[in-house]
Amino acid sequence: MILLLAALLAAAAPPLEPDAIVAAAPPAAWRPIAPDNLMIIETAAGTMAMELAPDFAPAHVAAVRALVAAGRFDGGSITRVQDNYVVQWAAKPAPGASAVGQPPADRPKRTRPQPLPAEFERPAKGLAITPLGFPDAYAEAGFADGWPVAQDRKAGTAWLAHCYGTVGAGHDMPPDSGDGSELYAVIGHAPRHLDRNIALVGRVVSGLEPHAALKRGTEALGFYATPAEQTPVIRARLASAMPDAPRFEVMQTSSDSFAAYKTARANRSGFFVRPAGAVDLCNVRVPVRVAK
Amino acid sequence: MILLLAALLAAAAPPLEPDAIVAAAPPAAWRPIAPDNLMIIETAAGTMAMELAPDFAPAHVAAVRALVAAGRFDGGSITRVQDNYVVQWAAKPAPGASAVGQPPADRPKRTRPQPLPAEFERPAKGLAITPLGFPDAYAEAGFADGWPVAQDRKAGTAWLAHCYGTVGAGHDMPPDSGDGSELYAVIGHAPRHLDRNIALVGRVVSGLEPHAALKRGTEALGFYATPAEQTPVIRARLASAMPDAPRFEVMQTSSDSFAAYKTARANRSGFFVRPAGAVDLCNVRVPVRVAK
Repeated sequence: MILLLAALLAAAAPPLEPDAIVAAAPPAAWRPIAPDNLMIIETAAGTMAMELAPDFAPAHVAAVRALVAAGRFDGGSITRVQDNYVVQWAAKPAPGASAVGQPPADRPKRTRPQPLPAEFERPAKGLAITPLGFPDAYAEAGFADGWPVAQDRKAGTAWLAHCYGTVGAGHDMPPDSGDGSELYAVIGHAPRHLDRNIALVGRVVSGLEPHAALKRGTEALGFYATPAEQTPVIRARLASAMPDAPRFEVMQTSSDSFAAYKTARANRSGFFVRPAGAVDLCNVRVPVRVAK
Repeated sequence: MILLLAALLAAAAPPLEPDAIVAAAPPAAWRPIAPDNLMIIETAAGTMAMELAPDFAPAHVAAVRALVAAGRFDGGSITRVQDNYVVQWAAKPAPGASAVGQPPADRPKRTRPQPLPAEFERPAKGLAITPLGFPDAYAEAGFADGWPVAQDRKAGTAWLAHCYGTVGAGHDMPPDSGDGSELYAVIGHAPRHLDRNIALVGRVVSGLEPHAALKRGTEALGFYATPAEQTPVIRARLASAMPDAPRFEVMQTSSDSFAAYKTARANRSGFFVRPAGAVDLCNVRVPVRVAK
């Protein structure tokens, strides 16, 4: 009887909005972003904070950290903004190497210390994947440790999904030709067809907006026609090397709070006369907050 | 034997890229956008061409046409740009009515000639829907007469889908409170949760880029804090009322060319080492071209 009453009361209570669920989530529902996984990128347009994903692309993340430590992104440029697709920034060329930042056809081959492996997917084993629970055009979608992922149960593989803000490492035609010196963030409808074709190294957790609003490049693929149109990258640092680094927390996608948040995203109330009853992977948007 | 040989040759031929399929599509694979369904919106940021969708929201499209004819969008403003969501523009207030363009909480009630019905869906009957053929989180997805749509077979209803560039008519909390004087275009990941909660009146077919790159508003929902931040709408006209109107054509989504294009979007070659084998509704992007 008491259980029935509780169920009736629960049914009568207005459903919580996604934001209210996030605000009410207990401390255990959050994990901090480790300072060594937090890259702060200062550009002439603003400051982006990016979480690195060493569990998905360890060699690429190590290469990006090494480029940051060597100051290679300092003095780099945003070389490409393609509408409904990506904003891309490039490190300075290594000493003695040719310049980057021109459209690919005109760009002389870069020198690379060593090509990186094609870290496009990983074993699903070792990941605790919380299923999305709704159909996905591309694969079986879910979340692992705060990241949107997809998996192939038959092959036993999993991979990060291209959602708004996801960061990938550009490469030329050979899959193992990336070196971490050119990174792009998604600024349009999730280009999931790129999943498993590019090493994803992380995601922007703060400060993407002014970069998503940069003038689109007019050359093929959205590259800028002239260096003058590029936005300078002033510097990039790991939070672990900054005295006053910002700190962020990501909602644990295995938590009850996240489950409630996902359900609320699928069943919006208030303005919504017809809740969808479902939500796609990239519309869930894993909550991230500034750490108190 | 000849059939087998043809099949072998087909298997050996490199698959055509989506762009090549579009370029090779015969005239019968295209339909013109009727001049009365083509709205040209000139703003301080550029010129957008928008196809109206009278088959999905007839009363709203009639209201928008009437507002255009009355010059109500001339001297209007882009009042809202929300990152990964929408750019929204508003007509001038009707004579004697209060101003639009402030955040909703501060905005006095507008006067409306008459509220419009909540044209959020329509009978599927009368639409020839070509199925997407891949899973969709929200509904059964497909295409009708060049538009991305979704349907509910049990209810016998269909509706336009919120994809990048889709245009909706803003309304207040009551579903029938829209009047066509505030329109938004999607500039982020497809907000499909809005499907069936808003009257969709069309889509931008050209010129969205500079508007998607406008500075994001800093108030709630991306409204601009001050009128000075707004981008002026210079004028809006129907192509049928312009002497030198541009003309556009949309690929017939019932055509063989579109079927081949969709398959190619699902199975990218070249750079792609792992074709997805699928594509989601809003990543198909129905081809639109300038009429020769």
